[in-house]
Amino acid sequence: MRNILLTVSYDGSAYHGWARQPGLKTVCGRMEETLSAYFSTPVVLEGASRTDAGVHAYGQRATLKAELGVPVEKIPMVFNTALADDRIEGLSDIRIVAAEERPAGFHARFDAKGKRYIYRIRNSKDPDIFLKRYRWQVAPELDLDAMQAACPHIVGEHDFACFQSAGGTPRETTVRTVYSLDIQRSSADPAELELRIEGDGFLYNMVRIITGTITEVGLGKRRPEDIPEIIRSKDRSKAGIIAPAGGLWLDEVFY
Amino acid sequence: MRNILLTVSYDGSAYHGWARQPGLKTVCGRMEETLSAYFSTPVVLEGASRTDAGVHAYGQRATLKAELGVPVEKIPMVFNTALADDRIEGLSDIRIVAAEERPAGFHARFDAKGKRYIYRIRNSKDPDIFLKRYRWQVAPELDLDAMQAACPHIVGEHDFACFQSAGGTPRETTVRTVYSLDIQRSSADPAELELRIEGDGFLYNMVRIITGTITEVGLGKRRPEDIPEIIRSKDRSKAGIIAPAGGLWLDEVFY
Repeated sequence: MRNILLTVSYDGSAYHGWARQPGLKTVCGRMEETLSAYFSTPVVLEGASRTDAGVHAYGQRATLKAELGVPVEKIPMVFNTALADDRIEGLSDIRIVAAEERPAGFHARFDAKGKRYIYRIRNSKDPDIFLKRYRWQVAPELDLDAMQAACPHIVGEHDFACFQSAGGTPRETTVRTVYSLDIQRSSADPAELELRIEGDGFLYNMVRIITGTITEVGLGKRRPEDIPEIIRSKDRSKAGIIAPAGGLWLDEVFY
Repeated sequence: MRNILLTVSYDGSAYHGWARQPGLKTVCGRMEETLSAYFSTPVVLEGASRTDAGVHAYGQRATLKAELGVPVEKIPMVFNTALADDRIEGLSDIRIVAAEERPAGFHARFDAKGKRYIYRIRNSKDPDIFLKRYRWQVAPELDLDAMQAACPHIVGEHDFACFQSAGGTPRETTVRTVYSLDIQRSSADPAELELRIEGDGFLYNMVRIITGTITEVGLGKRRPEDIPEIIRSKDRSKAGIIAPAGGLWLDEVFY
């Protein structure tokens, strides 16, 4: 049984998230079903991150366990052919970017040392309906300096219970380390703000609630210096709104 | 009963086209249901173009007949509020861009003098899965000069039966006039080709089949000078493949 680490990019718009759920279309479920049928052998995947419905990925990682004869360097091409759902283009909204052979005990999630997410906000009075699935569109002008001033308060090891939605997988601890967090205006498009966050792990909806809270700072509803007290409260109701799923990308998983 | 001409932009990805169809989610159907419920009065729309499933619009036009007290200048804002399906953003994938009062006999479709469509091709070896709904992604390098040389053969008054799919609304004649047709590389993104076509009317799938045929010229499968013979044949099987729906935009309707 081979253990192959895949790098997977996907448009999450049409999926109920990464993780298998009976009766729902999920990224992992679709990959397992399609590849199992294509190769006539059971294919099982374990993803590094359980991305939510509507969340996208540039670099999700997943370990694949299967009896497969395909050489590792051919796996991206062969899997992408199997996944293609359009005969003209040969494309799918899921794309295998890379594949590497790993030892039997290696696990995409348990062996991950950290992750980086990107959150994209479009800050413009003129909404773009064609970006609805890919940006949080905020009409009032955001104070970027204030948002940047909020970021350092979140970096470091903290109990992030205040930034966790109810209903996720139960965890032993809500303490996590955020290695870096910053927000910048895109040089290509001045209407676009890009938040980048790296950490050793993230609680359920944590990136989206951090983004919502920092955005409320940008709207003048909160001050940057309110953040430490919000974190100390460990109280979800003290933090900001949850930013929409479509603006979020799982960018990279570190091992 | 007022007669109001709306300019409507929509992302067609999630819809089975513009036209009402029982049991299916369509742009017209969703607008009529939402607005009828919002104003507690029957709202009926007639669109200028029956765009297909997955086709987008910048400037669809539709006449709206209803007993409504809303002043015409407030209609875009009020309708967009009614259509919003996201409480955080207040956005929908349908957006009313403009509204004008018209006399009772005016009809969005019958009074249209012409239409312009845009078709977007992404010509790159590296597919972008996040543009799957909005571009036809063609991997082999296209010969833009040859594609441009094909365009003038299509301009003018012709019987375009060769560029019509079976299954559309029956028409009295398959003669149409194409006023202009050109294809250009985007200055912002050299991977992107933009085809623009204006005409007095278009047959079922006509723009997509013209695009597919011209693209086959760009792939070297046909020569520009083959086009007149294809048109003379009046035979669908002599023309090229149908380009995917997602690359097509209804840009403007002329009155």
